[in-house]
Amino acid sequence: MFKKILIANRGEIALRIIRTCREMGIKTVAVYSTADRDSLHVRFADEAVCIGPPPSRQSYLNIPSIISAAEVTSADAIHPGYGFLSENAEFSQICADYGIKFIGATADQINAMGDKATAKATMKVAGVPVIPGSEGLLESVEQGKRLAEEMGYPVIVKATAGGGGRGMRIIRNEGEFDKAWNDARVEAGAAFGNDGLYLEKFVEEPRHIEIQIVGDQYGKVCHLSERDCSIQRRHQKLVEETPSPIISPELREQMGQAAIKGAQAIRYEGAGTIEFLVDKYGKFYFMEMNTRIQVEHPITEEVTDFDLIKEQIKVAAGVPISGRNYTPKLYSMECRINAEDPANGFRPSPGKITNLHIPGGHGVRIDSHVYAGYTIPPNYDSMIAKLIVSGQSREEVITRMKRALQEFVIEGIKTTIPFHIKLMDDERFKSGDFTTRFLEDFDFSNL
Amino acid sequence: MFKKILIANRGEIALRIIRTCREMGIKTVAVYSTADRDSLHVRFADEAVCIGPPPSRQSYLNIPSIISAAEVTSADAIHPGYGFLSENAEFSQICADYGIKFIGATADQINAMGDKATAKATMKVAGVPVIPGSEGLLESVEQGKRLAEEMGYPVIVKATAGGGGRGMRIIRNEGEFDKAWNDARVEAGAAFGNDGLYLEKFVEEPRHIEIQIVGDQYGKVCHLSERDCSIQRRHQKLVEETPSPIISPELREQMGQAAIKGAQAIRYEGAGTIEFLVDKYGKFYFMEMNTRIQVEHPITEEVTDFDLIKEQIKVAAGVPISGRNYTPKLYSMECRINAEDPANGFRPSPGKITNLHIPGGHGVRIDSHVYAGYTIPPNYDSMIAKLIVSGQSREEVITRMKRALQEFVIEGIKTTIPFHIKLMDDERFKSGDFTTRFLEDFDFSNL
Repeated sequence: MFKKILIANRGEIALRIIRTCREMGIKTVAVYSTADRDSLHVRFADEAVCIGPPPSRQSYLNIPSIISAAEVTSADAIHPGYGFLSENAEFSQICADYGIKFIGATADQINAMGDKATAKATMKVAGVPVIPGSEGLLESVEQGKRLAEEMGYPVIVKATAGGGGRGMRIIRNEGEFDKAWNDARVEAGAAFGNDGLYLEKFVEEPRHIEIQIVGDQYGKVCHLSERDCSIQRRHQKLVEETPSPIISPELREQMGQAAIKGAQAIRYEGAGTIEFLVDKYGKFYFMEMNTRIQVEHPITEEVTDFDLIKEQIKVAAGVPISGRNYTPKLYSMECRINAEDPANGFRPSPGKITNLHIPGGHGVRIDSHVYAGYTIPPNYDSMIAKLIVSGQSREEVITRMKRALQEFVIEGIKTTIPFHIKLMDDERFKSGDFTTRFLEDFDFSNL
Repeated sequence: MFKKILIANRGEIALRIIRTCREMGIKTVAVYSTADRDSLHVRFADEAVCIGPPPSRQSYLNIPSIISAAEVTSADAIHPGYGFLSENAEFSQICADYGIKFIGATADQINAMGDKATAKATMKVAGVPVIPGSEGLLESVEQGKRLAEEMGYPVIVKATAGGGGRGMRIIRNEGEFDKAWNDARVEAGAAFGNDGLYLEKFVEEPRHIEIQIVGDQYGKVCHLSERDCSIQRRHQKLVEETPSPIISPELREQMGQAAIKGAQAIRYEGAGTIEFLVDKYGKFYFMEMNTRIQVEHPITEEVTDFDLIKEQIKVAAGVPISGRNYTPKLYSMECRINAEDPANGFRPSPGKITNLHIPGGHGVRIDSHVYAGYTIPPNYDSMIAKLIVSGQSREEVITRMKRALQEFVIEGIKTTIPFHIKLMDDERFKSGDFTTRFLEDFDFSNL
């Protein structure tokens, strides 16, 4: 087992990793930017090394500084957390070259999943369902219509240079095709100077469902069931839950087996997540694979009783896994508490926390790096706490979450707590029947 | 279901009950003494009524004040928590007379278990093992020897008027009998003016093991397995855990069935606990029954996923239970964090909490009514928090508990945290092989 792990991250995930290392009797090294001097991850680690000032490219993304810190402190492994260098193939390779175990995917595995086109092609070969679409750009409107006929309407044309919804049109039948095609081309040309278009099957009323997998060094992979992350605002997840209210035991097993096949196709080691879109007919399509721990991993921990960081460390140290798949018996949900003002477009609200009261009691878990008197720096991600609540039914979890949110006191800054309280009272949310577009129509006033 | 519950208690258990009521959509009424004006249970309840000054007999034990508060606020039920009026048969009866549901045992059930001799006799008839002994006082040394021969040595003679170990002698064989008998008589006569003695089988190397049961109004009773509460100082529990390291599945089932028989013998309703002594041969003996929720109930909640307060409320409202017994799959442990100085004989340490940092993360639960800036009044029990930790093995729980204890910051007062940290490192404790006398030899210096 490792003797000392350097944590190349900050905030709640750095603290999360330190906690598990302590429980395993492994020494820890925190690295920190000058903006994070007063952070709890610095205080709770056995050693701490300052690696530079913000912004992140001068500190948390500064590979030479981090490798130096590991060398100086004789760390024999590095845990990258999520974000920053966690899916950086070069960093993974450099760690390997220096004989420091990277607790995450190998450079090859990261590369295989890092590029969307390669990832999609790999998954298709492995037999994982991917969203049907044109191979590359469409050459003509006729080719587009032929393809749409094959895969079935609705379809979507997208600008190859696109983004932010521009150069994109949903087409529901052949009669709409010519106009949509022309509009998208004109818009794409004007916006990006490139009018190349490609075609995809349009996924109707999608849910974002991801499967947690763990693989070991010996080719064994198991799945720990799904997380439903459909509550998003501008592709940022705000609430995650498990099990998903829309996944049947049969669909769970199909998706779990697809995720295992996908992971085995790249001989994946460690904890990883395969993200799928699930449409209203219960068909699922590969979106991407995250070759790292996810922010929302605690809800899986709560229903499986596994410590996923411990699993990552054990697998990295060569411990084999049992390979047993998991069927959920409990329910768990996470609300991301961000230093943002939900009534004002989720504008960041950094600053000093003048008063803090953390909820407690049965079924309540908090992962957070903040404390009363802590000043949230403006330089980083605005997430300041994860409130994770578990129970015997989705209904129990929602009422418990509301109770815990109402107990949660954070003064001095704005937070997303009022939004979450309103969400827990929303009939649509409580019904479990919503899509990834749910928050587009949500009323963020009166919070 | 009840519309409004008055909570006739204070501190963490009052808050604990309010939390569950909120989750069930039941309104709450807090009652409080003038010393508890700033307590969280007052702040989090829907209504609050001041019922008088300390000491408790003028407020938390003041039945007319509490009944008035329930009448004024139209509460349809009263939850008594633990301590105070929770096992007061008169209070239970008065609630019944006023048409207010007492969420606890009936007066008859409380009376049946309130007197030790009656309780023991009832259990014996029900087929629950009790500590063998003389029926009443011994008439002669010869009668004592005959009885000792029948039940087997070692035995213990005790002064009927005794207490604090006086007038008490352990006898390991017949040769010791005459001297011990005479010494005990002389000591009892001198100390209490009454030299009556009785005889009991001496329980060797005892563990305190209790079985949690839940009964409904229809005669069904289930057990939720055991809690091991052998870590005690002067009969005060400091640490509880489940499952017990010394209980085999067979013994668990035997004790569980005995507890069910005992509860059924008095047609017990609600949550209750049967306390047993278990000797080094795995024999168990009834000690007493607590007809209320216990301080240490959360460890059972953590391994069963039941909310025991919710079960109490449901049973009181007439909901039937499933009757399924529980076999533990997880491990859980509670450390009682008291405002006491463990290095100075656990002297109470009331006062203002100037700084507070609560531990979090996987497997960690906190039940507490305190906050930064709160002043602990000197009038009540010194428990200020329960730190409950769960995991996949006893070893994982102990390492996680130590990690959580080390994160726990309470400034301004002395607490039992340093004692608990030392205990988690103690080899004897870690081995699981100890008795209720373990702390008698514990070194409380160097904390």
